[in-house]
Amino acid sequence: MIVAELIRTKRDGGVLPPGDIHAVLAAYTRGEVPDYQMAALLMAVFWRGLDAGELAAWTDAMLRSGDVFRFPGAPGVVDKHSTGGVGDKISIPLAPLVAACGVRVPMISGRGLGHTGGTLDKLESIPGFRTDLPPDRFVASVNEIGVSMIGQTASIVPADRKLYALRDVTGTVESVPLIAASIMSKKLAEGIGGLVLDVKVGSGAFMKTPSQGRELARTLVGIGARAGVRTVALLTAMDQPIGWAVGNALEVRESIEVLRGAGPDDTVALVVRLGGRMLLLGGAVEAVSEGEARIREAIASGAGLERFARMVAQQGGDARVVEDPGLLPEAPDRTDVVAQADGFVVSVDCDQVGLAALVLGGGRLRKEDDIDPAVGLRIHRRIGDRVRAGEPLVTLCHRGGRGLEDALDRVRRAYRVADAAPSPSPLVLEEVS
Amino acid sequence: MIVAELIRTKRDGGVLPPGDIHAVLAAYTRGEVPDYQMAALLMAVFWRGLDAGELAAWTDAMLRSGDVFRFPGAPGVVDKHSTGGVGDKISIPLAPLVAACGVRVPMISGRGLGHTGGTLDKLESIPGFRTDLPPDRFVASVNEIGVSMIGQTASIVPADRKLYALRDVTGTVESVPLIAASIMSKKLAEGIGGLVLDVKVGSGAFMKTPSQGRELARTLVGIGARAGVRTVALLTAMDQPIGWAVGNALEVRESIEVLRGAGPDDTVALVVRLGGRMLLLGGAVEAVSEGEARIREAIASGAGLERFARMVAQQGGDARVVEDPGLLPEAPDRTDVVAQADGFVVSVDCDQVGLAALVLGGGRLRKEDDIDPAVGLRIHRRIGDRVRAGEPLVTLCHRGGRGLEDALDRVRRAYRVADAAPSPSPLVLEEVS
Repeated sequence: MIVAELIRTKRDGGVLPPGDIHAVLAAYTRGEVPDYQMAALLMAVFWRGLDAGELAAWTDAMLRSGDVFRFPGAPGVVDKHSTGGVGDKISIPLAPLVAACGVRVPMISGRGLGHTGGTLDKLESIPGFRTDLPPDRFVASVNEIGVSMIGQTASIVPADRKLYALRDVTGTVESVPLIAASIMSKKLAEGIGGLVLDVKVGSGAFMKTPSQGRELARTLVGIGARAGVRTVALLTAMDQPIGWAVGNALEVRESIEVLRGAGPDDTVALVVRLGGRMLLLGGAVEAVSEGEARIREAIASGAGLERFARMVAQQGGDARVVEDPGLLPEAPDRTDVVAQADGFVVSVDCDQVGLAALVLGGGRLRKEDDIDPAVGLRIHRRIGDRVRAGEPLVTLCHRGGRGLEDALDRVRRAYRVADAAPSPSPLVLEEVS
Repeated sequence: MIVAELIRTKRDGGVLPPGDIHAVLAAYTRGEVPDYQMAALLMAVFWRGLDAGELAAWTDAMLRSGDVFRFPGAPGVVDKHSTGGVGDKISIPLAPLVAACGVRVPMISGRGLGHTGGTLDKLESIPGFRTDLPPDRFVASVNEIGVSMIGQTASIVPADRKLYALRDVTGTVESVPLIAASIMSKKLAEGIGGLVLDVKVGSGAFMKTPSQGRELARTLVGIGARAGVRTVALLTAMDQPIGWAVGNALEVRESIEVLRGAGPDDTVALVVRLGGRMLLLGGAVEAVSEGEARIREAIASGAGLERFARMVAQQGGDARVVEDPGLLPEAPDRTDVVAQADGFVVSVDCDQVGLAALVLGGGRLRKEDDIDPAVGLRIHRRIGDRVRAGEPLVTLCHRGGRGLEDALDRVRRAYRVADAAPSPSPLVLEEVS
């Protein structure tokens, strides 16, 4: 393999042989291919794309750069991945519910950066909760209680870590095949047999239009299929925050409400829709409708809540939060944003809502930033809701006014209230499989 | 300036502000921008190109990375640059002829690599000739005798040296704007007021078709115009070697024949056509035809030969070669390639002829290779010439058979002889200004 030759081939729109893709990514991970050649290759890939065969090889090569988990035997092993949204706490109630229905969920999640939060940060707002379990305890938890939720380790897909740092500084982040390979290599390293993807589409998502979302969904599903992992994707709306909570401890609180059967409609709907498909892929049911019914039953029976409590305890957290959410950190101060006039909420700028939670201290602009788990936003009004002048749209939960002025400004600008109600739009746009 | 931002702008087809182009190239030359970011930027430029304003800024930024010569006052200061051909010794008779006609020529040339030779290597076949004059002696020679021919130094356009090394290993060599900026930055650093470009087109040139050649010519002329340097380009045929000599000392020998009025028609024609334009740009004449006549006169009068001898002496060479070319190194052995049948020469594969001279020892595959100035090829038959079976097409001048077998094979394959004469094609295809 001559790297400059590979670069020229991709630059000129050619197809790279799988063996060369494996060789160049392995050599890069070992430090034998310099960053400047990889940067040129990444830009050529950004330009020319990767076909299905190349993408499968690229993902597989990344996957093989580190440790791969294995969960042999029954029951089925399935995961879910979201491309990221504001207030997206779905994984937290979803994973224990699926485990309670008899499918194993070995979930490796990320941290928040920018306007979207991260599942790990949310879970760590539970006093004592550890997301850095050693690999053997992760495997043991999945096999014992059916679920574990941890963060990426240095030994899982190290090529992705190195490549992502390079892409970040060389203008090669926003490439569908490179994004898809990054997502799928990490998910496939979990050793799963099925994967349900929640591809977010809309103003608050990376993919702004259904056609962009569809392209990413098809690419992800295609990689899964070639890797022998049954993969389906739901395109779901990200035109407003999910549920009523944006912020780490607040989102755990909402998750517990979901598990208690008292969650907001949209959060519950996403949990049921995604969970039904996970149960189907995991072999626990024969049809999606049966899976959705099983998820609803696991909510109603408290089986999901019980499984969540076991997971919290298993990962060192204070499981009493399940009964007493007051044990979660809570911001001392509250300020409302109220409607200026009567009318209907017609749009909410998701990015600004996410950034409001960030500037209150709930998120990170840089990887090394600390976060405050207690702060965030309570959403009172959603798109289509009627509101009267002076009624609260959002309550900002803050710590002594830190970031408050900026957050207030963002939330005020985020909400648009008009005389006429908007036409309702669906939460789940379509399914790609 | 945020480099990743510049990369993304170019990647998305945007236009880079001149100030940012200057800043990024200056920082790269100082080592403050890493190779991996420059590699990504180069690939984005390869993909999206540079518009006229960006290209002017890019060229100017490269130019300013090092020393720039200045030749104030009269007479005019003009140079010529060829994009490279086989047997292209034109600069050697041309520069002294133009100087003899009263225009200063500060020529900085390159070495041969691959199938094309380099002016410096050819000149250095003259015993004692130095091409590494210190800058002050270069300037003094140009001002005293009107001409000096040297090699690039570390202080002239260092950005080009660094960028070229990176382009070579990142698949970003074959980009018209990057090629154009590389050529023009080095020429503009000479401090010239006018430039005549010989853009080679055909099977033996980098630009295979007139339209490719025209694109490069227009790009080069555009950069010159924006830099305030009057620039014209001739597109000339490179479908067979120029003149009768391919090889270093042999080409000096042919150059001396040109200056003596005994050169081959095509070599003389190129010298006259290019020289006439140089005299016009240098302000020595009012029209191209007048300039061409002056070049012919300088050949006929021996003024060009005399100027060449002064230049050779000034640069430490043995000026007696002018009277006695036998003082040039000469290969001890000769082998002919003869025609296999009667007919007409219908095509000559230039690249193979150039590579034949290389394998005999006259060229380099790698920069660090030594060359043998004495070896090379004498061309006896050109396209359109009638030949009889057994008559020599080419004589290989070699040293004890070194590389002979390979060279013979290449030359035999290079010549195509057929029954019907080919239709004649022009030497100068068009002028771009």
